[in-house]
Amino acid sequence: MGIIVQKFGGTSVADFERIRNVAKRIAKIFDQGNDVVVVLSAMAGVTDSLIDMANQVTLSPDKRELDVLLATGEQTTAALLAMTLQSMGYPAKSILGYQAEIITNRNYGGARIIEIGAGRIKEFIEKRNIVVMAGFQGCDPEGNITTLGRGGSDTSAVAITAALNADKCEIFTDVDGIYTADPNICKKARKLSAISYDEMLEISGLGAKVLQIRSVEFAKKYNVPVHVRSSFSEEEGTMVVKEDSDMERLVVSGITLNKDAARITLKKVSDQPGVAAKIFLPIADAKILVDMIIQNTRAQGLTDLTFTVSKKDFRTALEIEKQVAEKIGAEKVFGDENIAKVSITGVGMRSHSGVASKMFAALSGENINILMISTSEIRISCIIEEKYAELAVRTLHNAFGLDKDEN
Amino acid sequence: MGIIVQKFGGTSVADFERIRNVAKRIAKIFDQGNDVVVVLSAMAGVTDSLIDMANQVTLSPDKRELDVLLATGEQTTAALLAMTLQSMGYPAKSILGYQAEIITNRNYGGARIIEIGAGRIKEFIEKRNIVVMAGFQGCDPEGNITTLGRGGSDTSAVAITAALNADKCEIFTDVDGIYTADPNICKKARKLSAISYDEMLEISGLGAKVLQIRSVEFAKKYNVPVHVRSSFSEEEGTMVVKEDSDMERLVVSGITLNKDAARITLKKVSDQPGVAAKIFLPIADAKILVDMIIQNTRAQGLTDLTFTVSKKDFRTALEIEKQVAEKIGAEKVFGDENIAKVSITGVGMRSHSGVASKMFAALSGENINILMISTSEIRISCIIEEKYAELAVRTLHNAFGLDKDEN
Repeated sequence: MGIIVQKFGGTSVADFERIRNVAKRIAKIFDQGNDVVVVLSAMAGVTDSLIDMANQVTLSPDKRELDVLLATGEQTTAALLAMTLQSMGYPAKSILGYQAEIITNRNYGGARIIEIGAGRIKEFIEKRNIVVMAGFQGCDPEGNITTLGRGGSDTSAVAITAALNADKCEIFTDVDGIYTADPNICKKARKLSAISYDEMLEISGLGAKVLQIRSVEFAKKYNVPVHVRSSFSEEEGTMVVKEDSDMERLVVSGITLNKDAARITLKKVSDQPGVAAKIFLPIADAKILVDMIIQNTRAQGLTDLTFTVSKKDFRTALEIEKQVAEKIGAEKVFGDENIAKVSITGVGMRSHSGVASKMFAALSGENINILMISTSEIRISCIIEEKYAELAVRTLHNAFGLDKDEN
Repeated sequence: MGIIVQKFGGTSVADFERIRNVAKRIAKIFDQGNDVVVVLSAMAGVTDSLIDMANQVTLSPDKRELDVLLATGEQTTAALLAMTLQSMGYPAKSILGYQAEIITNRNYGGARIIEIGAGRIKEFIEKRNIVVMAGFQGCDPEGNITTLGRGGSDTSAVAITAALNADKCEIFTDVDGIYTADPNICKKARKLSAISYDEMLEISGLGAKVLQIRSVEFAKKYNVPVHVRSSFSEEEGTMVVKEDSDMERLVVSGITLNKDAARITLKKVSDQPGVAAKIFLPIADAKILVDMIIQNTRAQGLTDLTFTVSKKDFRTALEIEKQVAEKIGAEKVFGDENIAKVSITGVGMRSHSGVASKMFAALSGENINILMISTSEIRISCIIEEKYAELAVRTLHNAFGLDKDEN
């Protein structure tokens, strides 16, 4: 018994039947004597519809007003779930971001939590109410509504767990945990019983949408253990927790694949100060995110420069760089959309050497050519030809023994 | 120049094109140097859709949670209009009920305003922002969201006009003012340039949906002149104002018709204390509103009792009274759905005698039988057979000289 925070994502509250199922699940936990704080996302698709609505008015809606509009999505699900619980005979109270005193900075659309009051949540809990909090939203110190960015409800849940010093934080989602690899690609993929904050941060940074990256940062900062599990089954999911010595036994904990990559190369760029800025400023101005950047020095003060972007930005970025190349006198610009990024992640890398060479050897064993490499302390990513993507995942999964049981 | 409060109803913001038109109208007033506070309803139909949504969860949704849900309707239009104004280059800020400090009692679904802070509205105005306030909503002293009942945005507008001591309160709606009678029934009906609060209260009480009755009470209490006008034309509408001596020249200012009436009669009820309670308590328990009640004493301690209800409640009320009649030993119960209520209203009645007899004479001149009569200080209502309804309106309009020009 204690305070349990449960977050349900958009697919978990996508319709009235699912809302009822969520209500039953909560009621069961409540009946066991626990206090429950539920954090909700908007119904699946609603946030996108609201953005479409705003775009019908203007393609660059005022950010303050967009947040006022978007906040209605979670307000709706919070009211509906509280009603559902009430109709089942359970005392439930919805609470919105500002009512829960989720105080953020004023960065509309991607606000960061500064402080949480949570006084009213505590009051509600004391009176044995199930508290249903609208996730994703807060308010700035002046009381303007803010939102926390895509997936922000995860952060709401972790933050409120920390603020209440709650006993558990469960994130219910449409996957049943974190796997060693995508089970659709790699049949031998296993669900991890635990993963460290740092590994989760790397995986989230690689494009996995299981948890908002900021929620993991928050969980790490306040040491909140987060249980990622399925809203459609009772099975245990994966605990995202503080790293312990046991975790280091596994050198690599997972393989991640991201096919949403394309690369652009500028050949024979003059290797002078300021050239990189000339190449990347127009890309930034076009609001295109650059992932990896690699520069190889050639002879005679010339260099080749390659970078990757999302596939949707490829055409625009290529056009921009063709113009840049003319200005800076680069010999040639070429692009390649048929690439993928395969990564291995694991806190064990910190204390084990030879991980990179093992990865390269495994790929080379299947004649998979590595086009680019980037690394962090606990991650190695390789850009390869897209056609080898799935093969690479299976090869690495096998090479690092991830199909074997954890014990 | 000064502060102008403009309220736009659901039909005025029913789609994006109309929202743009509203924005243009506001911009024009703003460009003339005025400060503008806009009060908005939800898009036409949205409040009903939200109620339907709640009813899919439960037929008796928790009232607190229903208000949280309903408040999203006005939040949406406020954000959309503010965005639209911004996209046109005008500084605009949306503000919700709690942000505007519209403090109400805790009567969810029909809350009454206790106090208005309006500090943030004043701040926004000082910085020359157009303020777009979500109507219909407020919060109780603990910060729970409340709504003011159907048509509550009218009350929001009048209340904020009083709180800001604004110069004008304009209610934009889908009619272009208050007429001496329904122009669809009576071709000679004229638009009134002004009408008193008391007359407007009577007319609203008779079922006219132009203004929420509470907004008129509020306007009267704080002496806020309200300009009711069309959102689809530039024409002047009708001023709802404090009664002045000039108004009394017109004995009757308007004819109102309400066909949504049905009557039920209990014959030969024993005329004892407590009988009326036995007749009306089960009706109240069934949440049926009774309009007129008339009791005629007969000989031998017996009485006939007739009352009217809305047509939709007729069948239920009739069933209830049949059971009541058996219990209290009334001789007979019968009902009649084919009735209508025609009323004349005018502050001039206070100082003119013979108004009632003139009304009865006019109706009798057309062989229209009067079934029931009820009066207030400035109103006389007659229940007549429904088939004479339109004829009665035209006859009375003519009899009281309402087709003549006001000057």
